[in-house]
Amino acid sequence: MVTKKEAAEAVRAAKARLGLTWAQLAEAVGRPVAWTTSALLGQQPMSAAEADAAVALLDLGDDVRQALLLQPTRGALEGAVPTDPTIYRFYEVLQVYGPTLKELIHEEFGDGIMSAINFRFGVERVPDPAGDRVVVTLDGKFLPYQW
Amino acid sequence: MVTKKEAAEAVRAAKARLGLTWAQLAEAVGRPVAWTTSALLGQQPMSAAEADAAVALLDLGDDVRQALLLQPTRGALEGAVPTDPTIYRFYEVLQVYGPTLKELIHEEFGDGIMSAINFRFGVERVPDPAGDRVVVTLDGKFLPYQW
Amino acid sequence: MVTKKEAAEAVRAAKARLGLTWAQLAEAVGRPVAWTTSALLGQQPMSAAEADAAVALLDLGDDVRQALLLQPTRGALEGAVPTDPTIYRFYEVLQVYGPTLKELIHEEFGDGIMSAINFRFGVERVPDPAGDRVVVTLDGKFLPYQW
Amino acid sequence: MVTKKEAAEAVRAAKARLGLTWAQLAEAVGRPVAWTTSALLGQQPMSAAEADAAVALLDLGDDVRQALLLQPTRGALEGAVPTDPTIYRFYEVLQVYGPTLKELIHEEFGDGIMSAINFRFGVERVPDPAGDRVVVTLDGKFLPYQW
Amino acid sequence: MVTKKEAAEAVRAAKARLGLTWAQLAEAVGRPVAWTTSALLGQQPMSAAEADAAVALLDLGDDVRQALLLQPTRGALEGAVPTDPTIYRFYEVLQVYGPTLKELIHEEFGDGIMSAINFRFGVERVPDPAGDRVVVTLDGKFLPYQW
Amino acid sequence: MVTKKEAAEAVRAAKARLGLTWAQLAEAVGRPVAWTTSALLGQQPMSAAEADAAVALLDLGDDVRQALLLQPTRGALEGAVPTDPTIYRFYEVLQVYGPTLKELIHEEFGDGIMSAINFRFGVERVPDPAGDRVVVTLDGKFLPYQW
Amino acid sequence: MVTKKEAAEAVRAAKARLGLTWAQLAEAVGRPVAWTTSALLGQQPMSAAEADAAVALLDLGDDVRQALLLQPTRGALEGAVPTDPTIYRFYEVLQVYGPTLKELIHEEFGDGIMSAINFRFGVERVPDPAGDRVVVTLDGKFLPYQW
Amino acid sequence: MVTKKEAAEAVRAAKARLGLTWAQLAEAVGRPVAWTTSALLGQQPMSAAEADAAVALLDLGDDVRQALLLQPTRGALEGAVPTDPTIYRFYEVLQVYGPTLKELIHEEFGDGIMSAINFRFGVERVPDPAGDRVVVTLDGKFLPYQW
Amino acid sequence: MVTKKEAAEAVRAAKARLGLTWAQLAEAVGRPVAWTTSALLGQQPMSAAEADAAVALLDLGDDVRQALLLQPTRGALEGAVPTDPTIYRFYEVLQVYGPTLKELIHEEFGDGIMSAINFRFGVERVPDPAGDRVVVTLDGKFLPYQW
Amino acid sequence: MVTKKEAAEAVRAAKARLGLTWAQLAEAVGRPVAWTTSALLGQQPMSAAEADAAVALLDLGDDVRQALLLQPTRGALEGAVPTDPTIYRFYEVLQVYGPTLKELIHEEFGDGIMSAINFRFGVERVPDPAGDRVVVTLDGKFLPYQW
Repeated sequence: MVTKKEAAEAVRAAKARLGLTWAQLAEAVGRPVAWTTSALLGQQPMSAAEADAAVALLDLGDDVRQALLLQPTRGALEGAVPTDPTIYRFYEVLQVYGPTLKELIHEEFGDGIMSAINFRFGVERVPDPAGDRVVVTLDGKFLPYQW
Repeated sequence: MVTKKEAAEAVRAAKARLGLTWAQLAEAVGRPVAWTTSALLGQQPMSAAEADAAVALLDLGDDVRQALLLQPTRGALEGAVPTDPTIYRFYEVLQVYGPTLKELIHEEFGDGIMSAINFRFGVERVPDPAGDRVVVTLDGKFLPYQW
Repeated sequence: MVTKKEAAEAVRAAKARLGLTWAQLAEAVGRPVAWTTSALLGQQPMSAAEADAAVALLDLGDDVRQALLLQPTRGALEGAVPTDPTIYRFYEVLQVYGPTLKELIHEEFGDGIMSAINFRFGVERVPDPAGDRVVVTLDGKFLPYQW
Repeated sequence: MVTKKEAAEAVRAAKARLGLTWAQLAEAVGRPVAWTTSALLGQQPMSAAEADAAVALLDLGDDVRQALLLQPTRGALEGAVPTDPTIYRFYEVLQVYGPTLKELIHEEFGDGIMSAINFRFGVERVPDPAGDRVVVTLDGKFLPYQW
Repeated sequence: MVTKKEAAEAVRAAKARLGLTWAQLAEAVGRPVAWTTSALLGQQPMSAAEADAAVALLDLGDDVRQALLLQPTRGALEGAVPTDPTIYRFYEVLQVYGPTLKELIHEEFGDGIMSAINFRFGVERVPDPAGDRVVVTLDGKFLPYQW
Repeated sequence: MVTKKEAAEAVRAAKARLGLTWAQLAEAVGRPVAWTTSALLGQQPMSAAEADAAVALLDLGDDVRQALLLQPTRGALEGAVPTDPTIYRFYEVLQVYGPTLKELIHEEFGDGIMSAINFRFGVERVPDPAGDRVVVTLDGKFLPYQW
Repeated sequence: MVTKKEAAEAVRAAKARLGLTWAQLAEAVGRPVAWTTSALLGQQPMSAAEADAAVALLDLGDDVRQALLLQPTRGALEGAVPTDPTIYRFYEVLQVYGPTLKELIHEEFGDGIMSAINFRFGVERVPDPAGDRVVVTLDGKFLPYQW
Repeated sequence: MVTKKEAAEAVRAAKARLGLTWAQLAEAVGRPVAWTTSALLGQQPMSAAEADAAVALLDLGDDVRQALLLQPTRGALEGAVPTDPTIYRFYEVLQVYGPTLKELIHEEFGDGIMSAINFRFGVERVPDPAGDRVVVTLDGKFLPYQW
Repeated sequence: MVTKKEAAEAVRAAKARLGLTWAQLAEAVGRPVAWTTSALLGQQPMSAAEADAAVALLDLGDDVRQALLLQPTRGALEGAVPTDPTIYRFYEVLQVYGPTLKELIHEEFGDGIMSAINFRFGVERVPDPAGDRVVVTLDGKFLPYQW
Repeated sequence: MVTKKEAAEAVRAAKARLGLTWAQLAEAVGRPVAWTTSALLGQQPMSAAEADAAVALLDLGDDVRQALLLQPTRGALEGAVPTDPTIYRFYEVLQVYGPTLKELIHEEFGDGIMSAINFRFGVERVPDPAGDRVVVTLDGKFLPYQW
């Protein structure tokens, strides 16, 4: 039996071997690229049709397909604080600006949270003469504290 | 001598007492609201003019003004993993989608990071019939690995 | 300026001194007892009317009242694992039955969570000849994963 | 020799392959669904009859059956703080409402705890026009501090 | 308001100043010495009569008396692993013999625990020509796992 | 080469398969049951005769026998705080009563410790109409601080 | 599929077997020695030509070559604090002189950081009659805080 | 009595109030700027003459002077992993390049370390058309492993 | 009431102010210098005569004297891993040579430990033309594992 | 390829099988016993001649020999705090006497450290009618802080 983690490694290896992009995989699967990537990395359960499409394009077997269908136990970081610099910068944003995010949400919406469940995000390149910019848009439903 | 942390508490208390908003403070200071909030919470050094404007509106004294001028030692979370639900959801996004963010940045830009230094962000309310949405835009310069 | 934590200590001391119960405080405040208790312990912001009622019954001053109005940074445990046995047993339930809870939620509802924001709970005594039972009902809206 | 953890993985795989539900497994085993699920996930020792029934329905071998009989070393979380959002929300409840739970138990019962040993729980779907609700009922014997 | 921790320090200081023993305090309080010691160190709530007796013998004031009456949040160690050698040795016993204790309890009683709530203990000196021995007797009700 | 940990797993499996008790193993080995159990779980080195007797009764091979002879690196818990409830209760005793144990040892013996090296313990069932009791006797030589 | 970590071990083994130096490998690869070493240890992705050159000199196979091409998840320490003395001394420098480094950067450049992405370093031997010196030059672009 | 930490805060405040630079303080003290900064931040003991010079220029009192003379217990970070981005980047260098540093030291010098005791460092600005660079030179005596 | 930690700080301050050495204090107290230092730093209880002598020489008051008499809760490090380099080197010895120490003790003495209770140590300067040496002698009674 | 850790296990197994002592191995290798033991446990690189001698006496193969030649990444403890009692006692010495060691080194030598690199140690049995003593002599070059 292949775990979702082993399936993710198999996906990465096949993607590199075949020279595929996450965008191509997303198109084949028929879902947004961020969702598709997270699903292939083991953080979302795929439908049978989605798994079929992914496995076909990646030329992988049924054991990987089975793993992609499973309900994940989510959580993709090795430790509490990520060490990889590309990921760490987002943790640094949280360390430096976390309470600011909280204040601005409460000022605009009142007491509550941005849902991380009813949630989507995207990564975009915004050209800039001083150097192109990575723009990440986090978009979650506001959930007010309701007793 | 007042620390930046004590100054932040004084700011919060005065803001609540006077019924001010972060947006009003930002307007007085003449900087974006997210930057102003983070500066008043102790994560940015203010210029003399910015600190003057903030302290005047908040009716606070020179000791707070001095603290606002200081270079901060940044880091606003009490522990490695935040416990406050409004802040935690951003950590959860990182736990679940961190490697996805990394893959998408590398696919679009190559090996490198989104800067958290040459960086700005904003929080917006996007109306939605199914419930308004919190949209957080993280916007940092791409920095390629360069030896 | 009194913090929410100091206010909570003042509440506990006054409650003990005056021989009040959380139920009496909840009745005065006009909210459920669990919500009222958590608010007086610093985990919810109170409205002005609620704070007035609580402070009047507890014979406390305006500084505590101000603290009760503040938006909290939530998180009430001293460490990641609680040491107090009454609280620890709930952590033990999570340690032993956490994955079971996850399986049963997914089986009944599909992929998603029990909200801890749109959420209420209660504690009840259920008489039992073999020893009365503590019955805690956790009641949160189901939130499906939605991209 | 198959460990209880490996047995749990084999159970999950067989259950997915055969399209079984925890409720069907519980019926076959003749125990409540929450207990049965936790036992099949390795947190309870099964009787020989219970293990026989489970293994028969899951079409698994004697090595899994042996593992299901073993006395477990309990504890099902990978770290002190769970990362999976479905499980984390229960930890968040503890972080925000732990001391409130303690106060309410002491107010109603005096000094003591809700047993996590003489204990059962259930998960229910409660229909609600604003969105169905997950209702978890934790039900443990009160144990007073007795010297 | 005096916390239970501050009360414990006041108790220790008064006990040293007056040359009292825990045994004398227990006799005055009318409870076993181990219970009395733990209560005066802040781990048990005392009845009014018990607190009166202790405070009278220790020549302490009403603020300490109030603190002794309070329901404690239990947990007396500074960190997860104690550093004091006298306390550490008990942790070492747990590190070396914890699984053995578990096996012997299950062999004799079946699946369950020694209660730490319905529980008492004592410390005794047992003369021995090769050096007197510390004999600690932990005595808790067996609680079987019962669903 | 079989490690002591693998040998312990082999012992548990053989003991379950053959329906043996720790008491029977102790009798065969000729040592107290608590010592024998801890040795077979990898926390004591056995003599050749002891290992021979254990391996014979358990019907295990020479590789396990070799492992039982080895000097152990002691420490049987997976983390600093045990998660298994049967073991955790002893940690809870330490959390709640650790400083009390220290006080009582110092009152009776002066500055020093209960040895965990010159040490033995036992687990006993004491019948009680209100429910039988687990009585654990920890018995270690007193070691005074001596420069 | 060979991971970057396994590839690093294969590189070390081959390098030792063949008596190669990092300098020779760097020359073959055509990049600075520090970069080449970090890439062969799994912390940089190599181009196809670089991986070809390295693998040829080290007499390793295509699986290692594939691994050298992969984008790494960076982070080379086993724990938060390194235990190896040669590496620890750099952590000690950070522990003792971290805030000094920060002050001197801010004094010279204003608020900002030394980039660890647009970054290079070298290790040099500087002869000294009192004992040769290790001189490590860390050289990163200054990045000012820019909103 | 003023601790070295309190003295460091007093130094920072006076330096800001008087508009002094670390370079000016170093000149007055007669030591390199990096050493002087670390000493005034509490990580080195100063001689009487050095403390006199610093205190005179900073217009501080004898209590600060006394503190500057004390032997420090070194270690300037709040936690194991620094949160301030300016300091964190050096930790990141260690995370990514630590083993590379080790390899290069061993290749050049054999088995041993760069001393962090017989050690000095400096921070320099190196102009660069693509953005000025922070160049940190760590310079420690090589110490070979010698039994 | 002065704690042992506050007393230790008072001792250090007075010692510095009066220009005393630990050796002089030890002579006055009439105990070995290592013991006396550890006692004055709060890790040993002093007898009345010892405390009298120390307090007289240090010109300190009765509150410090009272603190010196108290039974300590031992443990002098701020965290699990010391950050001060002078202390860290001993931790490094343990990290690198801990299992070697264990092997050599078992080879010479059999299964058991070097007591840290029946224990003394000393620090000596041993002249050496290549640089004088710090020689620390740890001297503890061997305690065999005895059931 | 055999790692140094696997080599250490092979050494221990062969040593037990052949009934060799560390002293015999040290004699064969021609180095002090403490050094030889630490090298065979993977904490020192051996020369070819030393590895040859060790492997010959232990009757092990070339893969172990290769591993003994490798430069180690040092650090022999499983966690920050050792659990094995024989090793823990040295950690306890550090916990209780660490600051005393620091004071005595500074008093005798001035500001600096005992080197753990230019370092040797030995373990000796010292007969004593009250029980033989373990005497560990740590002997490192004094390194003064030198800028």
